[in-house]
Amino acid sequence: MIKRFSFGNPIETEATVVKLPVSSENELTKYIKLSADKKCMTISLEPDDIVYGLGESVHGMNKRGFTYISNNTDDMHHDEDRYSLYGSHTFVLIDSLSGRKLGIFLDYPASITWDIGFTDKDLMTVSLEDADYNLYTVEGEDDLSIIKEFRELIGPSYMGPKWSFGYVQSRWGYKSGDDFREIIANHKKYDLPIDSICMDIDYMDDYKVFTLNKENFPDLKALMDEMKAENIHILPNVDPGIKCEDGFSIYEEGKKKGYFCKDENGEDFVAAVWGGLTVMPDFLRPEVREWYGDLYKEFIEAGIDGFWNDMNEPALFYSRKHLKEVAHDLKTLEERVDDLTLNELWDFTATISGLSNNPEDYKSFYHTVDGKKVRHDKVHNLYSVGMTRASAEGFRRNNPDNEMLLFSRASYIGGHRYGGIWTGDNCSYYSHMDLLMHQLPNLNMCGFIYVGADTGGFSFHTSEPLMTRFLQLSMFTPLFRNHCALGKRDQELYRFKDIDTMRNILNLRYSFIPYLYESACDSAENGKLMFTPLAMAYPDDVRARSIEDQLLVGDSIMIAPVTAPNAVGRYVYLPEAMRMLRFRSVDDFDDIELEAGNHYVDVALNEVLVFVRGGHQFYMAKPANRTALMEDADFKYFER
Amino acid sequence: MIKRFSFGNPIETEATVVKLPVSSENELTKYIKLSADKKCMTISLEPDDIVYGLGESVHGMNKRGFTYISNNTDDMHHDEDRYSLYGSHTFVLIDSLSGRKLGIFLDYPASITWDIGFTDKDLMTVSLEDADYNLYTVEGEDDLSIIKEFRELIGPSYMGPKWSFGYVQSRWGYKSGDDFREIIANHKKYDLPIDSICMDIDYMDDYKVFTLNKENFPDLKALMDEMKAENIHILPNVDPGIKCEDGFSIYEEGKKKGYFCKDENGEDFVAAVWGGLTVMPDFLRPEVREWYGDLYKEFIEAGIDGFWNDMNEPALFYSRKHLKEVAHDLKTLEERVDDLTLNELWDFTATISGLSNNPEDYKSFYHTVDGKKVRHDKVHNLYSVGMTRASAEGFRRNNPDNEMLLFSRASYIGGHRYGGIWTGDNCSYYSHMDLLMHQLPNLNMCGFIYVGADTGGFSFHTSEPLMTRFLQLSMFTPLFRNHCALGKRDQELYRFKDIDTMRNILNLRYSFIPYLYESACDSAENGKLMFTPLAMAYPDDVRARSIEDQLLVGDSIMIAPVTAPNAVGRYVYLPEAMRMLRFRSVDDFDDIELEAGNHYVDVALNEVLVFVRGGHQFYMAKPANRTALMEDADFKYFER
Repeated sequence: MIKRFSFGNPIETEATVVKLPVSSENELTKYIKLSADKKCMTISLEPDDIVYGLGESVHGMNKRGFTYISNNTDDMHHDEDRYSLYGSHTFVLIDSLSGRKLGIFLDYPASITWDIGFTDKDLMTVSLEDADYNLYTVEGEDDLSIIKEFRELIGPSYMGPKWSFGYVQSRWGYKSGDDFREIIANHKKYDLPIDSICMDIDYMDDYKVFTLNKENFPDLKALMDEMKAENIHILPNVDPGIKCEDGFSIYEEGKKKGYFCKDENGEDFVAAVWGGLTVMPDFLRPEVREWYGDLYKEFIEAGIDGFWNDMNEPALFYSRKHLKEVAHDLKTLEERVDDLTLNELWDFTATISGLSNNPEDYKSFYHTVDGKKVRHDKVHNLYSVGMTRASAEGFRRNNPDNEMLLFSRASYIGGHRYGGIWTGDNCSYYSHMDLLMHQLPNLNMCGFIYVGADTGGFSFHTSEPLMTRFLQLSMFTPLFRNHCALGKRDQELYRFKDIDTMRNILNLRYSFIPYLYESACDSAENGKLMFTPLAMAYPDDVRARSIEDQLLVGDSIMIAPVTAPNAVGRYVYLPEAMRMLRFRSVDDFDDIELEAGNHYVDVALNEVLVFVRGGHQFYMAKPANRTALMEDADFKYFER
Repeated sequence: MIKRFSFGNPIETEATVVKLPVSSENELTKYIKLSADKKCMTISLEPDDIVYGLGESVHGMNKRGFTYISNNTDDMHHDEDRYSLYGSHTFVLIDSLSGRKLGIFLDYPASITWDIGFTDKDLMTVSLEDADYNLYTVEGEDDLSIIKEFRELIGPSYMGPKWSFGYVQSRWGYKSGDDFREIIANHKKYDLPIDSICMDIDYMDDYKVFTLNKENFPDLKALMDEMKAENIHILPNVDPGIKCEDGFSIYEEGKKKGYFCKDENGEDFVAAVWGGLTVMPDFLRPEVREWYGDLYKEFIEAGIDGFWNDMNEPALFYSRKHLKEVAHDLKTLEERVDDLTLNELWDFTATISGLSNNPEDYKSFYHTVDGKKVRHDKVHNLYSVGMTRASAEGFRRNNPDNEMLLFSRASYIGGHRYGGIWTGDNCSYYSHMDLLMHQLPNLNMCGFIYVGADTGGFSFHTSEPLMTRFLQLSMFTPLFRNHCALGKRDQELYRFKDIDTMRNILNLRYSFIPYLYESACDSAENGKLMFTPLAMAYPDDVRARSIEDQLLVGDSIMIAPVTAPNAVGRYVYLPEAMRMLRFRSVDDFDDIELEAGNHYVDVALNEVLVFVRGGHQFYMAKPANRTALMEDADFKYFER
């Protein structure tokens, strides 16, 4: 049973596809206490309540015990003291052993603070900056039916084409067609499957969006034809900011048409991103989305059929105005050196480190929504949705006959209908595998199905065992991308010693693609989870409630990846008897019947566990080095 | 079998108490390959080799798969991308299933890089900056006998007095005797045991070491008498740096005597720490240690019998010279604002954030060792040992009849004979509990037995469940201190809701003190581990080799703390049948016989697990609210 409550004058976010009538406040479930000003709601938590949701956020699958802030933020340090990541997914689901099952969706695109049993372990307190929002409550018999009902409200999810389930090689630093050729050649040499290669920011001419460095990319069409002959998809990175440069046609056209966000004086708001000083398209205006969406056309015509939209929180390295103030302040440091207090020094340090993603900057520019001026921070989390939607709608106009791949860094509910996401810049940390496990079901319930993480880790240096274990987890996610930052250790799979293991993992992935793709499509279309917590699949099993390191994938299988360094095995809990497949390769695997209950299972560094559920079928295809070269016929078939 | 190899002209670190003859290089174990310049050694690792050691460092109990740098560093972010923490403990122990057991101690007080299967998963590469060092190899039948032999080399460990096993309440921000009175009153009100309260940096007059803020501490002796009547020990924080202030007698005396480290021009090296600009006593000189050690006398005479030496890496917030250069550079930022590149901006940012603990600063000052000028970075890790030794020897001179408590932040092997350590500033992270579990046995094997972590977490805000779980781990460590940073959430135990649980945990701790104290003394004197990895205690049990979340404590018990948020149970592996005590309080516990093997055990938030080993005795005393009020007689006694 879903109900809408509306307070003040909410911004139209288009997060939902169904327009529900507004219920009277006295129909609000007894569990939620609203403050008189409507800016704060409190919900009592029973000792064993689980709180799911919040999609891409830090901490466990169960969000309880911490505070979160829904505020799209460019921050690769997904540590235990962070409040915000790249996406804001403002749906939670409270599951009580005693029977209460309550979904809450706050459709509000500014910052929301969720204190979920942090300050008081038995209380959830949700705070908004304004009392202008739509609140949806979903009550039901069980978690999965609540999720299904919520997903009907927000509409079906984007799903990437089948080829986008192939392996994606990426790295910040690839500069030219020769880099792609080298990757393809090495994948051939070592017999490693691959479907796509990402073009990161270096392909552009001086970081100007939708341009090419002409020296490195003299003929994009010819390169794309060559790539097509190799069955390789090339995926360019696209940023929202447009470099302020006289003569840069996109900048000049947008400026002439008044398409950019404005500062308080009505001038174009200028902030630095990769291209240096840039302006920000006002993606909240339909005509700007249409204009921007058509900018992809030239690349599409050259043969490109996939993009990743980056930096669209939007990340701001600094605003021109703020940098001027800071630079002026810093001038005084020299004369103060001899009598400087530590607090003064730390203020100087904070000033300069606070230049990027500064909250004051987000309050200093404006959008036009339905002809009205709206300050950016009030609609911050919608910015990414506007960009994703602009891209997706542009694709449909300019390439209606082909499925396009699109994934975005920032997101808000609603964006799930237009594109997938990756979980943003992460680090080469073992703990970021656990984090991905925790995020997957929470992202799914918020509508994001085509998802994946930077496998091996974006920032910091990876190691071979870490990469191996990370692949063994990411091989189950729709987006399966190896991505890494400039200056970090090379992590293309052929850089490592045990290439046999890397090849076996990729082959297993390809062999699983038919199953994974079908599961993903089913989840996207039918309001299901692709990654389901055991607690939801086995609601009567109390022990399953606290299991956060195992997930069902689709209907038929359960995964239990190893995420600890130097581990050679792990514990697994089976809520029912299952058939355990321990794969070393597509053809070399153990097939063991396991009873329900607790098990310790050996899992060597080259092994991948798949558990087949009773009454379900799991099937594998014969792998190939490209998805396009795979045959549909079943290769192996497992049933319990 | 222990051997010494000596290269170049090693600094005399006094890390060892036994002077071994030098073996010829051709007697070096075949496992170690030395480079021609002797600055690099490589050791092949077999797939299932474990590498223990490195004391206080990040990552698992098994150090394999990562790179570490032994270089004492003030950094509270003990994340997976950090190389150095506060202490440098340059002993590793390679345990091979196939029989090789090899201890390696590099007695070298400058930076050492340990690539332990990171770059190449099968290779350990150890790099030194110079070829002036002593290398000790210890070969033996098993890990514990190698450790015992190594510990005989480095001498017996410091152990705190029995009262120092009582609960310690600390917080950066306590300012006066009234703060202590409030803590004592609340502990009385809620019937919570406590033995000590820390005085953090705010007690000083303007951060001048060995001074008191006269307004807040008008009469230290009277306050200490009052505290003594309460059976409360007050533990002041002591920093090495001495504020440069004319008229400050300690500064003037040290300056007159030439006791401070010098810059390249022979002037006192000046760097900012808490007191602003300070000078650094040259603790490598015996006469400076003697002078500094006697500075504690006034506090001791007032009744103080415990101290914690802080900031002694030494942490440097900035050097005067470097700040001047940076301030000069930053002056140019304003004129560059309009055509600033991102890399230039990031250079400016890095410049100012690089002011603290800057490697160049550590290369810009000098010690005098045996009359010779030695650049600081060449002896960096010895600085803390000098300070700890100065304090300990001062205590012996000035208070020979009383056991004193001393624990240090920074350390190097050798310092273990003079004082304990805490594991430095950590964060309110669940993962920092795992880290402590991993550090404990590795610290023990390097000689550090009186150890503990900032329970609840120093930086960031704690939560009640996190504090509860952290207490349930720290209650087994010799130093049991709740400590927290300024500005972070109040975390005295009476601030939380479920004070009954807090009280029960403290009572259990006090009840365990006789067992823990005896185990700690035994370990300190007899070269044993207080916290033993299961793999070492059960060397024939292959499964035990990868267990990093359980530890033996003393000879009789095993612990298996819960370190995950929202967990209500955990897996436990028993290498032998054990008696499981699941304590809710001293009097309320389950007593369950468990077979050897894997178990899943319920552990509610208010429960603590203790496993009693076969053939061993575990005993508990009747708790009291002060160690001084406890009776020695056994209260409960468990035997298997």
